[in-house]
Amino acid sequence: MPLRLNSKDEGFDAQFSALLSMKREVSADVEAAVRAIVDDVKTRGDEALIEATARFDRLTLTPQTLKVARDEIDAALAGTDPEVRAALELAHQRIRDHHQRQKPEDERYIDPIGVELGSRWTAVESVGLYVPGGLASYPSSVLMNAVPARVAGVERIAMVVPSPDGRLNPLVLAAAALCGIDEIYRIGGAQAIAALAHGTETIPPVAKIVGPGNAYVAAAKRQVFGTVGIDMIAGPSEVLVVADGENDPDWLAADLLAQAEHDAAAQSILITDDAVLADAVEGAVERQLALLPRRDVAGASWRDFGAIILVGSLDEVPALADRIAAEHLELAVADPEALFARIRNAGAVFLGRHTPEVIGDYVGGTNHVLPTARSARFSSGLSVLDFVKRTSILKLGPAQLRALGPAAIALARAEGLDAHGRSVGVRINL
Amino acid sequence: MPLRLNSKDEGFDAQFSALLSMKREVSADVEAAVRAIVDDVKTRGDEALIEATARFDRLTLTPQTLKVARDEIDAALAGTDPEVRAALELAHQRIRDHHQRQKPEDERYIDPIGVELGSRWTAVESVGLYVPGGLASYPSSVLMNAVPARVAGVERIAMVVPSPDGRLNPLVLAAAALCGIDEIYRIGGAQAIAALAHGTETIPPVAKIVGPGNAYVAAAKRQVFGTVGIDMIAGPSEVLVVADGENDPDWLAADLLAQAEHDAAAQSILITDDAVLADAVEGAVERQLALLPRRDVAGASWRDFGAIILVGSLDEVPALADRIAAEHLELAVADPEALFARIRNAGAVFLGRHTPEVIGDYVGGTNHVLPTARSARFSSGLSVLDFVKRTSILKLGPAQLRALGPAAIALARAEGLDAHGRSVGVRINL
Repeated sequence: MPLRLNSKDEGFDAQFSALLSMKREVSADVEAAVRAIVDDVKTRGDEALIEATARFDRLTLTPQTLKVARDEIDAALAGTDPEVRAALELAHQRIRDHHQRQKPEDERYIDPIGVELGSRWTAVESVGLYVPGGLASYPSSVLMNAVPARVAGVERIAMVVPSPDGRLNPLVLAAAALCGIDEIYRIGGAQAIAALAHGTETIPPVAKIVGPGNAYVAAAKRQVFGTVGIDMIAGPSEVLVVADGENDPDWLAADLLAQAEHDAAAQSILITDDAVLADAVEGAVERQLALLPRRDVAGASWRDFGAIILVGSLDEVPALADRIAAEHLELAVADPEALFARIRNAGAVFLGRHTPEVIGDYVGGTNHVLPTARSARFSSGLSVLDFVKRTSILKLGPAQLRALGPAAIALARAEGLDAHGRSVGVRINL
Repeated sequence: MPLRLNSKDEGFDAQFSALLSMKREVSADVEAAVRAIVDDVKTRGDEALIEATARFDRLTLTPQTLKVARDEIDAALAGTDPEVRAALELAHQRIRDHHQRQKPEDERYIDPIGVELGSRWTAVESVGLYVPGGLASYPSSVLMNAVPARVAGVERIAMVVPSPDGRLNPLVLAAAALCGIDEIYRIGGAQAIAALAHGTETIPPVAKIVGPGNAYVAAAKRQVFGTVGIDMIAGPSEVLVVADGENDPDWLAADLLAQAEHDAAAQSILITDDAVLADAVEGAVERQLALLPRRDVAGASWRDFGAIILVGSLDEVPALADRIAAEHLELAVADPEALFARIRNAGAVFLGRHTPEVIGDYVGGTNHVLPTARSARFSSGLSVLDFVKRTSILKLGPAQLRALGPAAIALARAEGLDAHGRSVGVRINL
């Protein structure tokens, strides 16, 4: 049974706060183990990488077989079911089209006193893309991470994907092929992150690493941060569905379960102002659960972290939604635009009854890598901006330096930085 | 004596690589101590915060005196030397004017099949601004951190600044006053970061924390990352000056020393194609050093981490500069624009002989919070973008869902996510 809350209840504030601070992830203490692996790969390169892969993935590699051969990638694409291939191509094209609008523009201008200022954006030179193995090895995630990098102009994308016992999801290779990625290594875990960050004899280091992974991968990314850039550390997925009474309970139940089936730690929350709908959705979830192949996972998520919140009016929604700051926000209400205008914190919004969140997972065009665990309060989903960086520009002539110099000198002196003052003063005889 | 390298020497590549991998920071192991402080403040709130402040800053506070009184802020501004106040106001205005151009624009559009897509930017609700105490308590840093937040539309800025033995730099209060900040707490260290992240009885929590600090502050920021957003973890400052033979050695020496005086771990590098200039700059640095109040700091930096690199031609500069990926890049050459066009990695560029980096520290208008330690390869200086976040938008009607739905279902099935497929299928009878 999911949590049932009613905003009219006396204890609601405390219950809602408890819901927000619920710990959904067991933070395994893998720091020390990961540090040993990362240090070993940093020091011994390929040798350590190959040993770790033998140990963790039960796969014996050589420097020659670390990299997936071009033939294998081509074969994976050629062997893809035509319907799935067409779907991947549609997704690829729509993601590319949308992200092309995110490219930031350079700017140069001259201010009233003649100082030239500006910003120039350039692509990160090289990016490592981590793709999980096993159950969570999703071709859609390859597209969502690789396409923005390509659009940004990243020249080199090195992909890593573990193949436990030698098994590699061919759809992941097919998705990589669609993105023009041909540098793929069959490695994973902390050892793969270490190889990307520090380089080995076979794998040149990259400047930034993106992509989801398990606790070991996340810990390794945190440890190499600074040596390379990293994207966000993603937590379990979540959806907040806001619905008025005019909804089909089966549709909403299906949306809640789509989130829940990701992970037993995923979280699905429904807020509605209609008590009858609330009950109907709860019933529909139970009925649909029984039909799902992943009912164990989805059921655990719904039971442990699911919630249905009944409010007196949808006017109460913005305050609650902003505190939840959901990764995915579905607004299945009569006027979704009006409600969205009043909500500030959400990774992605899905407007109206005909926009299930799943469309955004695959073929909407927007990115499905989004801030989890309330971090939409301060961060954004993956975009082209994650693969570019900005250089700020200043250009003064002698007249501008004379105009601004005295103020700079005054501030330098006030801060006790005499050499700063001299650097300006020596040029304008002050 | 700084390191002297010549790109013609046989061992140059190895020497240059060694220069890049030089460890300038002693990474003090403060993790455990910081974790104890953060946990204590999280659990016991004000009481723990006040105890830690008594212990580390030798200052006895109460919940009532944690916050700096409005009177004290007003008095600091009123008491500021008029020349310094005018300089602060000029800096404030120029930083504001420049950053106002960085506000990202919302976008909504409808694609050829009628799907509505978009991005909406909103300000982070509340930001904590850390300002160091003691020697590195700079009013310019208050402006550089607070102004972009204000321009972004952040409603609440809570500033923390330690006042060891009760001493507080009035210029820091004056700069805060210029930015309209009146929520200032006289706390610092890991305990201040913990208070901002988790909140106490007196201090409401914030959504994001920015600003530089010592090893304890940096470790605390890493630890609370996730609960709140953080900015980059800044390392020691650095400058790369690229100069042809047509420069005044005294000007360049002053620029190298302006960087060096920040910190014994700061790094100043000169690259030139003129051996005579190289010698002249080295001599000028020695002469100017003797005149500097902070000669101990600047001398240690120059001796331990300074470098002069002689190249055969300025054509060699882009490859070297991209590997250095300097926080500050000065191009004191005849055609700085042409050289800049060939360099990719730099936090900020200063074009031409009349643009000393110090102008960017104070009154240029660009931000002085910039990526250090080679991180300009993958990250950017502080900007308005650090104080906003993006919600991606999708909106489909029944026709669009019928058009895209089958592809989404195909991908969901291929990924083994049946509930995903059902969420679409239930709406279009598939």
